[in-house]
Amino acid sequence: MDILIENGILIPMNIACHESTLYFKGYLGIENERISFISHDKKDADEFVALHSDCYRIDATGKIVMPGFINTHTHVAMALLRGISDDVPLMEWLEQHIWPVESKMEYRDVLVGARLGILEMLLGGTTAFVDMYPFEEAVAEAAEGVGIRAVVSPCLMDFKMEHFENDWQQIIKRFSNSRLVTIMMGPHAVYTLSEQNLQRSITLSKELGTGNHIHLSETAVEVENAHKKYGMTPTEYLEKAGLFKTPTLAAHCVVMSERDIEILSRHNVSVVHNPQSNMKLGSGIAPVKRFLDAGINVSIGTDGASSNNDLDMWEEMRTASLLQKAVTGDPSVIPAYTALQMATVNGAQAIGRKGELGVLSRGALADIQLVNIEKPHLYPHTNLISELVYSTHSSDVETVIVNGTIVVENRKCLSVDEREACLTAQRHIDNLLSK
Amino acid sequence: MDILIENGILIPMNIACHESTLYFKGYLGIENERISFISHDKKDADEFVALHSDCYRIDATGKIVMPGFINTHTHVAMALLRGISDDVPLMEWLEQHIWPVESKMEYRDVLVGARLGILEMLLGGTTAFVDMYPFEEAVAEAAEGVGIRAVVSPCLMDFKMEHFENDWQQIIKRFSNSRLVTIMMGPHAVYTLSEQNLQRSITLSKELGTGNHIHLSETAVEVENAHKKYGMTPTEYLEKAGLFKTPTLAAHCVVMSERDIEILSRHNVSVVHNPQSNMKLGSGIAPVKRFLDAGINVSIGTDGASSNNDLDMWEEMRTASLLQKAVTGDPSVIPAYTALQMATVNGAQAIGRKGELGVLSRGALADIQLVNIEKPHLYPHTNLISELVYSTHSSDVETVIVNGTIVVENRKCLSVDEREACLTAQRHIDNLLSK
Repeated sequence: MDILIENGILIPMNIACHESTLYFKGYLGIENERISFISHDKKDADEFVALHSDCYRIDATGKIVMPGFINTHTHVAMALLRGISDDVPLMEWLEQHIWPVESKMEYRDVLVGARLGILEMLLGGTTAFVDMYPFEEAVAEAAEGVGIRAVVSPCLMDFKMEHFENDWQQIIKRFSNSRLVTIMMGPHAVYTLSEQNLQRSITLSKELGTGNHIHLSETAVEVENAHKKYGMTPTEYLEKAGLFKTPTLAAHCVVMSERDIEILSRHNVSVVHNPQSNMKLGSGIAPVKRFLDAGINVSIGTDGASSNNDLDMWEEMRTASLLQKAVTGDPSVIPAYTALQMATVNGAQAIGRKGELGVLSRGALADIQLVNIEKPHLYPHTNLISELVYSTHSSDVETVIVNGTIVVENRKCLSVDEREACLTAQRHIDNLLSK
Repeated sequence: MDILIENGILIPMNIACHESTLYFKGYLGIENERISFISHDKKDADEFVALHSDCYRIDATGKIVMPGFINTHTHVAMALLRGISDDVPLMEWLEQHIWPVESKMEYRDVLVGARLGILEMLLGGTTAFVDMYPFEEAVAEAAEGVGIRAVVSPCLMDFKMEHFENDWQQIIKRFSNSRLVTIMMGPHAVYTLSEQNLQRSITLSKELGTGNHIHLSETAVEVENAHKKYGMTPTEYLEKAGLFKTPTLAAHCVVMSERDIEILSRHNVSVVHNPQSNMKLGSGIAPVKRFLDAGINVSIGTDGASSNNDLDMWEEMRTASLLQKAVTGDPSVIPAYTALQMATVNGAQAIGRKGELGVLSRGALADIQLVNIEKPHLYPHTNLISELVYSTHSSDVETVIVNGTIVVENRKCLSVDEREACLTAQRHIDNLLSK
């Protein structure tokens, strides 16, 4: 179905611009899965309607029209584990609470958890996500079914290699023609992979032409252990192993030396900043200002819901900005527009789709959110960019379009029964916890 | 009107408890402005209905019923200035953007700004706030008119003493019989008050039997300047001046020595933590863990909307918890229940109304919020306390009761035309900016 969005305030995000380049009353047309025009001029809208007389028209008066968010690091199925453990140290969290439940999770649990998490993301304006987990085939199935764009990363860990080999092959078999699902390799982390298995990921990613998505320097303990085992930092180790010769997405990067930063910059590694998860687990605060100064592409992720505890990119974007201001003591660090770029265009670059995602421009894929700004917490309208970053909530998102299809309208997901998805998730976690 | 709330999940907050003491299917009755019973037992509800046959019944099935939040430090009328300046250093923010507009603000602007901010707070479940600004009479008028509980603190600054003297007298004259408005003195800060004017605040607060509400050690510059001028920290200076012999509410307390903390603890001074404003202005991170360890009562505030940029106590509570975990490296710091206490019972203690506000218990004032947890981002229900603190949004609040009166129902404010309030605020700021 072709779509015309009329009279909205369009934020294209396609150049290093600011409020001056917004379309205050703009028009945007969608043909099939792509944006066919974006314009200030009503004549272009009239022409579009003349050519597509049966198009679906969305009146966006008083609404912001902007790219959907790209959540570049999550374990979406962990929505199922939301709240099962909080406020405890990382190892206790993992060993006593998360891993025992995860060890019992099967394909169907991951599918149900992923559906719940995807629903939450779509309702909050996230139109694409990068995932890593076991049973990524189930995550791909959920994404395709509900209608969100996903980059699934089947997870390589030493004790789950057999599972991994089955998982990636199934994904290729079932989803290689998908319009929504693509694949990256998911080497879990330096501390969970032998050199041989890390090389397996590198080799396979080259064969399949995919990138690698890895956890990197999330905690001080991880860095200490790498020093003990390899005599170098995790980043140095991965460079030596050749990982960075493939397109790499490095999540967390909390504990980083100047040399580590130089390495990431030199190899064009993208960093995913996950501020709320790092805060909640007491892991620390990533030096995002230094990454940006070094020219590194930094995007934003929520991590899993069990260490956050939500999948809300509005909050994550806001926290990314505020947290760097707090630790640097400089309120001008990560200004609002930069934060918005991190959640959109930088996310697109992180998954190798710069220009195609994270922007509103002719030819780009139509992954779009409409935000209702006619609410007391968003008044007065003085600076729309700052309003989006510092004051807008996920519940202000009204309409969401993924790949040219409307998936959320009037704050309701059209493709899934929300209540059913919630109650099914409840049954699954109750069952897992009682096993 | 008497009210019966039935079948809700009641969180009383009246003891140092945890989830084990919730009422999973509870009943709560309101007579006039107070809670007349809270019970697990349907018989108590039946008895209430027999005695109050015309009572208004609220079915709270699947909803959390909890005390409204107490926002213990804000400048609510600054909602009018939301977004006029962001991402710039503090002095530039104040001198080039905020003060020039504030200097043009009159009674009517403060009234309009306060209405907008109060609306935002009520819709997000905040039922009481502590304010400081010029024209607090207008803030009191807005609070009384819209129906929120307010502690107004007319602001003492050296260059506005005449204004202050008029303001507090008018408030006493108009609002001394108010059920919603009370008064505290508002000595602005050590750096904006002569010793004489500080003493005026102390004397007056003793005469009127009120406390004092002051900004304290918000930035390193403030502390340095106090050292230069007085040879001591702002906290030491205020102790010497005798301020802490009156009930004192100290906002911010970002830059604090061990001795400062000992002084606040010894004098039972309450600290208001404003994490997002401190982050956004690059002021730093208050040592909240150390305050709590010293036995200090710590509550939460949003500060004004122009340095936040919202008045959202859910976010503020979440940020308070996450931020301390991040800086201490300890994920067990400020666990969810502690954060919830800071936003409710500790706020009540901060304004001298422990047991009367911030709790659901027989005899307490009926300041209550109902939260809809039947949403994807709040599923599954595993730990309701963690769900409230780490996952709930202000938009999940459905019903709000202040002083026994329903002011928000189905997410709509009953006492104010929201659209009108928004558009009026827009006109006022446009007018101020064009002057």
